[in-house]
Amino acid sequence: MTSVRDLDSPAVTIDLDIMEANIKRLQEQMNHLGIANRPHIKTHKIPALGKLQMQAGAVGITCQKLGEVEVFADAGVADDVLLTFNILGWPKTERLMALTRRLKRLAVVFDNEVVARGLSEAARKAGVDVRFLIECDTGFGRNGVQTPEAAFDLARLAMKLPNMVFEGLMTFPNKEPTAGFFTRALELFKGAGINVPVVSGGGTPATMTLKDFPMLTEHRAGTYLYNDAMMVHSKAATWAQCAMRVRATVVSRPTDNRAILDAGTKVLTSDQYYVQGFGHVIEYPEATVPGLSEEHGTIDLTQCKEKPAVGDVVHVVPNHCCVVSNMVDQVYGVRGGKVETTWKVAARGLVT
Amino acid sequence: MTSVRDLDSPAVTIDLDIMEANIKRLQEQMNHLGIANRPHIKTHKIPALGKLQMQAGAVGITCQKLGEVEVFADAGVADDVLLTFNILGWPKTERLMALTRRLKRLAVVFDNEVVARGLSEAARKAGVDVRFLIECDTGFGRNGVQTPEAAFDLARLAMKLPNMVFEGLMTFPNKEPTAGFFTRALELFKGAGINVPVVSGGGTPATMTLKDFPMLTEHRAGTYLYNDAMMVHSKAATWAQCAMRVRATVVSRPTDNRAILDAGTKVLTSDQYYVQGFGHVIEYPEATVPGLSEEHGTIDLTQCKEKPAVGDVVHVVPNHCCVVSNMVDQVYGVRGGKVETTWKVAARGLVT
Repeated sequence: MTSVRDLDSPAVTIDLDIMEANIKRLQEQMNHLGIANRPHIKTHKIPALGKLQMQAGAVGITCQKLGEVEVFADAGVADDVLLTFNILGWPKTERLMALTRRLKRLAVVFDNEVVARGLSEAARKAGVDVRFLIECDTGFGRNGVQTPEAAFDLARLAMKLPNMVFEGLMTFPNKEPTAGFFTRALELFKGAGINVPVVSGGGTPATMTLKDFPMLTEHRAGTYLYNDAMMVHSKAATWAQCAMRVRATVVSRPTDNRAILDAGTKVLTSDQYYVQGFGHVIEYPEATVPGLSEEHGTIDLTQCKEKPAVGDVVHVVPNHCCVVSNMVDQVYGVRGGKVETTWKVAARGLVT
Repeated sequence: MTSVRDLDSPAVTIDLDIMEANIKRLQEQMNHLGIANRPHIKTHKIPALGKLQMQAGAVGITCQKLGEVEVFADAGVADDVLLTFNILGWPKTERLMALTRRLKRLAVVFDNEVVARGLSEAARKAGVDVRFLIECDTGFGRNGVQTPEAAFDLARLAMKLPNMVFEGLMTFPNKEPTAGFFTRALELFKGAGINVPVVSGGGTPATMTLKDFPMLTEHRAGTYLYNDAMMVHSKAATWAQCAMRVRATVVSRPTDNRAILDAGTKVLTSDQYYVQGFGHVIEYPEATVPGLSEEHGTIDLTQCKEKPAVGDVVHVVPNHCCVVSNMVDQVYGVRGGKVETTWKVAARGLVT
């Protein structure tokens, strides 16, 4: 087996012990709460890892793109898939219908009538039923219907369209207003005698507060598999629970307090959100990463007692693991200093 | 020929008329100034576009990674290549020596003795000469030697190592202190009777001030080929000179002033640098792009008189075209509403 030391840099490595513990810990938490675990595979885009999540007890998977569903269906990862994106336009709706035929259950979400009508029309032509959840904006301010009443109205409209089967409500992420939104929406559906089998929440930080959302029947977390600096900063993980690291070499020490790595935005990305800097250097925890160019990472060593030399290898926990997966064609699964496996990031680059 | 309308979204398109004009305009400017044009291919990573730049009059190309040199050498784009990165460690130095044998001229840069000694050792074993430029930090604060004296000392040290051929000085980007730095360095070399055939500057915004740096013998610009929101904000281009656009569909209109696109950081990236927001929507120039998720782009329509509907297609000029190239496996060359060509982004994903 190849030693990790023989991996040229930069390389994206996954600590297998940590990743396996992350999979197990979240599954146990969800089992304890009685909430179905439907992990989001956009984090890794690797069918083998989806299979590990299923083997641990997931009820199915979540995908964000049609291409992800296709790759994971081809690999036989799960026969129960939720696609959490408004699918619009005939090239995509035709692909969706083909997948609907192949999978035991494929559900989609939408938040507007145009998407609903397009799905119904495609379903009617294909002679299949489309199972759907209404996407609700419960405080995040992205897409989703804006009120419980709008969720109810859109569901009722769509239920009247040909070949459309209502399955429930969906949000991302669970935030404080989510409980009130879903409680009111569920009252409306109950008042109309409409069953709501699925209430689906999402987000890895949101797994810390799942008990505050007793109406959820399932939850979609993605990042928990690898974890990253955002999860540590939101207290959803510790550095020791971060499985993804970008292996990088110090290629320059231009000043006493500056080191330059051979890893920049083309592997770590510019994602910051609420995190300061662009990553966490495991070997030099007092170091900061104030800037990245495309192929250079700038490290500030001002707070470090020990400082790396040119040629030293370090490991950087990225701010956001889900986007790093999307930068590379393969990641390396490592254990005990050995490269145990190399995974192709099979669903990378499938932009549609 | 496929109509652009038939491209499913998101898709990265290149307006061929604009790109060809950008190539011609910069080449003419460089010819007028008498500075050799050595375009940086990290912007596009496509051999066919490197050939267009060479046909327009470039003296050679610039690469940032060994993998880029390999792909462009395989495609026969140029026999004169500058690799502007510290190349360190035997897997990379061996690959570099193989390329040195294949190309008429392959030059590298470095800013420290460790890299110089590694290159010399590999060159000696391979029986080839390594042509090198000293990378200078002339105000950017990334890598590079910090003073003209350090540049002189490192060059002299490296010239004494086996199989090392000094060719000159290099910086990125040309900034105000660059002229003083290079003037002083050139005095030192002249005083020691050492010829400095190449003084290499870089950056697309820096093409606006090339006449302030008369010591430059060549310049490396990359972004100018496509241009992007950063170039417009730095006055190096107009929106009409931006050739790269991300074609995206409005998939949701959750509120009166919000639209959601099917393009997020996994195609546009989070790069911002000095630009507000995450892109420029051509059809709605008053719109802003305050946020991106992985697969969603959030558009603020507050300042727009006309507003798009769900299903409408828009085109977004990204903040930074060079990183968008790295997100996709292919880009589409379009002209007059037709897809004239599809290019594989051949050097994408070659992380080492």
